[in-house]
Amino acid sequence: MIHARDLDRLTLEERASLTTGSGLWTTRAIERAGIPELRLTDGPHGVRWEEIPATCFPPAVALGSSWDAGLLVRVGAALGAEAAAFGVHVLLGPGVNIKRSPLCGRNFEYLSEDPHVSGVLGAALIEGVQSTGVAASLKHFAVNNQETNRMQVSAEVDERTLREIYLAAFEYAVKTARPWTVMCSYNRINGEYASQNHWLLTEVLRDEWGYDGMVVSDWGAVGDRVAALRAGLDLEMPATSEAAAALVPAAVRGGDLAEADVDRSARRVLQLADRVTARPPAQPYDDDMKERHHRLAREVAGQCAVLLKNDGVLPLAPAASLAVVGELARTPRYQGAGSSKLVPTRLDDALTELRAVHTPPVPFAAGYRLDGAPDPALVAEARAAAEAADVTVVFLGLPDGEESEGYDRTHLDLPAAQLAAFAAVAETATRVVVVLSAGGVVTTTAFDDRAGAILAGWLLGQAGGGAVADVLTGAVNPSGRLTETIPLRLEDTPSYLNFPGDPDHVRYGEGVFVGYRYHDAVDGPVAYPFGHGLSYTTFAYSDLTVVRRDDTVEVSAVITNTGTRQGSEVPQVYVSAPAADVRRPLRELRAFTKVTLAPGESTTVVFSLGSRDFAYFHPTRRTWTVEEGTALIFVGASSRDLRLSGEVKLEGNAPESRLTPDSSLAEWMATPGGRAVLSREMQPPAGSGLPPSRFLSDHYVKTVGSVPLSRLARIPGAYLDLTTLAALADEANG
Amino acid sequence: MIHARDLDRLTLEERASLTTGSGLWTTRAIERAGIPELRLTDGPHGVRWEEIPATCFPPAVALGSSWDAGLLVRVGAALGAEAAAFGVHVLLGPGVNIKRSPLCGRNFEYLSEDPHVSGVLGAALIEGVQSTGVAASLKHFAVNNQETNRMQVSAEVDERTLREIYLAAFEYAVKTARPWTVMCSYNRINGEYASQNHWLLTEVLRDEWGYDGMVVSDWGAVGDRVAALRAGLDLEMPATSEAAAALVPAAVRGGDLAEADVDRSARRVLQLADRVTARPPAQPYDDDMKERHHRLAREVAGQCAVLLKNDGVLPLAPAASLAVVGELARTPRYQGAGSSKLVPTRLDDALTELRAVHTPPVPFAAGYRLDGAPDPALVAEARAAAEAADVTVVFLGLPDGEESEGYDRTHLDLPAAQLAAFAAVAETATRVVVVLSAGGVVTTTAFDDRAGAILAGWLLGQAGGGAVADVLTGAVNPSGRLTETIPLRLEDTPSYLNFPGDPDHVRYGEGVFVGYRYHDAVDGPVAYPFGHGLSYTTFAYSDLTVVRRDDTVEVSAVITNTGTRQGSEVPQVYVSAPAADVRRPLRELRAFTKVTLAPGESTTVVFSLGSRDFAYFHPTRRTWTVEEGTALIFVGASSRDLRLSGEVKLEGNAPESRLTPDSSLAEWMATPGGRAVLSREMQPPAGSGLPPSRFLSDHYVKTVGSVPLSRLARIPGAYLDLTTLAALADEANG
Repeated sequence: MIHARDLDRLTLEERASLTTGSGLWTTRAIERAGIPELRLTDGPHGVRWEEIPATCFPPAVALGSSWDAGLLVRVGAALGAEAAAFGVHVLLGPGVNIKRSPLCGRNFEYLSEDPHVSGVLGAALIEGVQSTGVAASLKHFAVNNQETNRMQVSAEVDERTLREIYLAAFEYAVKTARPWTVMCSYNRINGEYASQNHWLLTEVLRDEWGYDGMVVSDWGAVGDRVAALRAGLDLEMPATSEAAAALVPAAVRGGDLAEADVDRSARRVLQLADRVTARPPAQPYDDDMKERHHRLAREVAGQCAVLLKNDGVLPLAPAASLAVVGELARTPRYQGAGSSKLVPTRLDDALTELRAVHTPPVPFAAGYRLDGAPDPALVAEARAAAEAADVTVVFLGLPDGEESEGYDRTHLDLPAAQLAAFAAVAETATRVVVVLSAGGVVTTTAFDDRAGAILAGWLLGQAGGGAVADVLTGAVNPSGRLTETIPLRLEDTPSYLNFPGDPDHVRYGEGVFVGYRYHDAVDGPVAYPFGHGLSYTTFAYSDLTVVRRDDTVEVSAVITNTGTRQGSEVPQVYVSAPAADVRRPLRELRAFTKVTLAPGESTTVVFSLGSRDFAYFHPTRRTWTVEEGTALIFVGASSRDLRLSGEVKLEGNAPESRLTPDSSLAEWMATPGGRAVLSREMQPPAGSGLPPSRFLSDHYVKTVGSVPLSRLARIPGAYLDLTTLAALADEANG
Repeated sequence: MIHARDLDRLTLEERASLTTGSGLWTTRAIERAGIPELRLTDGPHGVRWEEIPATCFPPAVALGSSWDAGLLVRVGAALGAEAAAFGVHVLLGPGVNIKRSPLCGRNFEYLSEDPHVSGVLGAALIEGVQSTGVAASLKHFAVNNQETNRMQVSAEVDERTLREIYLAAFEYAVKTARPWTVMCSYNRINGEYASQNHWLLTEVLRDEWGYDGMVVSDWGAVGDRVAALRAGLDLEMPATSEAAAALVPAAVRGGDLAEADVDRSARRVLQLADRVTARPPAQPYDDDMKERHHRLAREVAGQCAVLLKNDGVLPLAPAASLAVVGELARTPRYQGAGSSKLVPTRLDDALTELRAVHTPPVPFAAGYRLDGAPDPALVAEARAAAEAADVTVVFLGLPDGEESEGYDRTHLDLPAAQLAAFAAVAETATRVVVVLSAGGVVTTTAFDDRAGAILAGWLLGQAGGGAVADVLTGAVNPSGRLTETIPLRLEDTPSYLNFPGDPDHVRYGEGVFVGYRYHDAVDGPVAYPFGHGLSYTTFAYSDLTVVRRDDTVEVSAVITNTGTRQGSEVPQVYVSAPAADVRRPLRELRAFTKVTLAPGESTTVVFSLGSRDFAYFHPTRRTWTVEEGTALIFVGASSRDLRLSGEVKLEGNAPESRLTPDSSLAEWMATPGGRAVLSREMQPPAGSGLPPSRFLSDHYVKTVGSVPLSRLARIPGAYLDLTTLAALADEANG
């Protein structure tokens, strides 16, 4: 087999051929050189290979809600084991795109509205997958935050917003987990396709972040193969026509493309082949693996469901007279639609699982049809079931067609037919528990008042039915937390007026104010805040310490289980950084962990914050900048449940500002040196008897202070000589 | 005297010298050629020439609130008469910048958050000024919507937003009123200084709008004289140094600047001289003119005040036991700070004026100090005065230093000292009337509940005190309307997170959703909506007709005074246009008028809407586009008090879309021709026995439909030949 180091033993055509696929899901083999075909397949939450049933783990929307990196490593390792068993070399995930709008149809494949959560959990999944010798593919790089017009639209985003929000999770995952492949996205970014974006694929990804893996296109994302290779896109997928493939050698021979660019990408493909073929023999994909992975899927799902509210109706009393309403209890929605959809090895439903563990009989009424057609008879059945029950568990959610890769949602409401069933239940005297199944956020106002408890079950994979039963009965203590704000109304979301944009452009007008950063900045009400989630036990926060050690700030706190059950808590560290040249979010999540505590048990959680955690990307200096001043540190149970606060002084790393002739009058007058020089210089001709320049007065400094000194010097009465300003600046700068 | 047509009789140095000032407020004379010095001076609301007292009319914030174009023509003519009397040739106004944020410190110089109101009223003021032979100067062109960093900041705005919002008022005024001068702004627009912006000053202003006047710089707005001349900036003000002036001839001789560019600008300066020196002899600036203009200022001010709420306490009963509280009643704020500030010929205060017409004694308590220092004694006096009065009129407002040219506000609150005085009054049993004096919006929540009536007096000029007395007593029936939304909170305003941006950039992230366009789009609550204002009488709206005649839509309605006093009403026409490729505002103001009716009297108001009133600026076609469909027409008393509605069918002017190889799969499948061609073509090789391409299925069209056909053709299983797509497109297009 020819390895990356032996590239020169291949012809130009052979090297070029390595940079495109041979079919939908395979790279090109070169038999004479012993270069194997590599298999790539979809699968953030399960391996989709030729419709072979595989374990369907909870999709990213749920995995993210676990806030548990260790759990994601385990899921990744299980995914890798199945991929290896199928002979798959590259698993196309995880997706760490930011949930910019709750309307994005593909949000179920993404982790969070926050880049830190996305980065940490995305890295964990990569680590798990690659621990088995299978390559992960970090996607979709970058700024692919909507499905509408995703092949055409240009995301118009300023660089600070890119760096702080949309690239940050990729940066974290690349630097921390070193994925062997990164997948570029379909869209354009500030006018240039991601697949042809040299700044993105080479300057940022490789030169700045030190990425050493291969970049693969999203399927069909390449329009101009030559431009893509030049930009740093290594492998176009899927196969392309022979005519298109021939363009690359022709471009090299015609001088339009450097041969070194082809070699560089071909070498990366071979390097990937070296990496993935070095893996240990796969474990057999037998019933034992399937059973182990199904159990894991159930365990994981139990950590992902988020208990939004609870008046005490949960966990269900063992002897409660119960009813279950909602077709989704019997016909679960457990994964999203589109390229990630796979055939599961089994499928558990919540109704069966609940009946299996709840002693009294559990009557069921479908309540609604999944196709949304009104059905008064089903509604009447639901009412009757609820009337006879002390507690009614109502399963509500989005039908399959309402969210998918390929298109976006247009509203956040549940189907009217489901709400009709809920309303019928609500009219009875029963206590109500709502279980939600949806890959994206739905607004809760239609049922929130009447529900004693709400469990956001997202999409929980093939074993989610059992996990829901575990949580409802208390066999599992819920510990999921929201990675995405649940707004009161779609109109309250930050991208509301700029999503999905026009066919060619989408303006990221909200800048860095995405998710809770927005809601907190405008001090707006939300239904449930980012980071929120309840437990069947309670936790106390105490003993905050904030200590600076060289370049890091160490934050610690004591978390105590003050309730009567074992449970897990997710302490979250938010930083409020000093004011800066730019408008900064009120608070930003910078660290979190998940701890499990027995009743009465305490533990000390310790977080280490680096300078980046206090920095912003300065738009004109184009560097990460820490402002001098005091940062506030909060440790809390959600973005709006901040239990502890402390502070730390920062020295800052902003370069000392130097006066220049183009510095403004106000900037000159704000420094002692500048003020002294101007006060001396801005005098009328000797003997004129005139007063000093009026521009020295506080009034003028306040009202016209933004005028550059070089421009002021042109104006009569400034008494400044344009030709001496540079010397004056040197003097003022000392 | 050398005229514009005789330009070639001047040397290059002389021609170049015409393009810069000779002092702060004068152009360069050329004595040997008989070319006079021209005088330019500030004055949107009064002529500021060498501190000579001049009539201080209400500033633009108030004039706009009159919604009365005829009134502004009269004010303009009076301003022109005073300018002429002073020998001034150019009056630097009106300002038609859009009130993007209520925080802009210079909003008192601007007319509205809406471009139609700004354009119509700006044009009226220009017509009035220029009717006297004095040139107006339409300013600040363009996108100067903040004072912070106005000399450096680049307003980052997409072209659609520029065209629909920020340029539209300029366009209207240029085309309608043909100002002899336009003043460029300080700021940059998408990176380029307005003073050096060829697209703005030449392509848009002259080539598209047909402007034939002169462009003058804002004072000190020129950084690069040569670039400015090249871009179409004719006159740099004020004087520049000899060294800077010499740059222009040097650039011509060095080949960096076309001599024709210098000639073009010099010719425009001479053309202006021709225009302004052709005016009739000035009327004498005598006591009679001063008296007439003071009376006009009072009349105008009476039409500008906006009655926000009224529980019946206004007009004041003639015999009411009254108290007046608030230093602002005695020490009026009547104009803004900065370049527009002038010395008035007289100054009336509301307290004196009220005492002059109200029969019972009117006790007064200052209540607060204007410098904001707490003064419990003054608060106690206010309380005592209120306790003794049936009705207490409380004057509140912004002190002089809180709003000014040169810096922006940071909040919308009244000073705490004033609110303390109000609170003391509010604790008594008196009925409360609030009179507001402020050049910008203040939030009303701190006093709204307790006030029986609120009169927004803005800044009403030197005769405003009398006008307030007129309105309070009912001598004048209030008829002002809000040209700017009063929000409940600063956080609710659309630019909240993007104002004033960082030192170099400000992102217009809200796009076209400025003012009521935003509040309506997000269905958010406001304190008082755009267009709102009460009267002492009532009006009924009836008999809407909407008729299309060729290219125009004629809208008529009957307005009836259903109350017992004469009064004026401002019927407003809002258009809700059909859905389009872009997100459109829910409703946009497209026409308005002001009618005065006796009790019981009716009148028919008629409006003519043109195609532009239904159009949006298409971001990729870069043309004004009318979509086919049904537009809704509303006639109402405010943006949220829509009394009548009708509709009109529009044919649209969008070009027929043609399929191309780069059109998306969904676009192809959406046309009968495209669908037929693809259904025939996307078949597997003959005899293969395979099914048609899966990409023809509804599922794939929905989920991957945004893929360009040219890209799909590269993918295995599409069964498309890249080389035949152009021919297929021709066939599909028929």
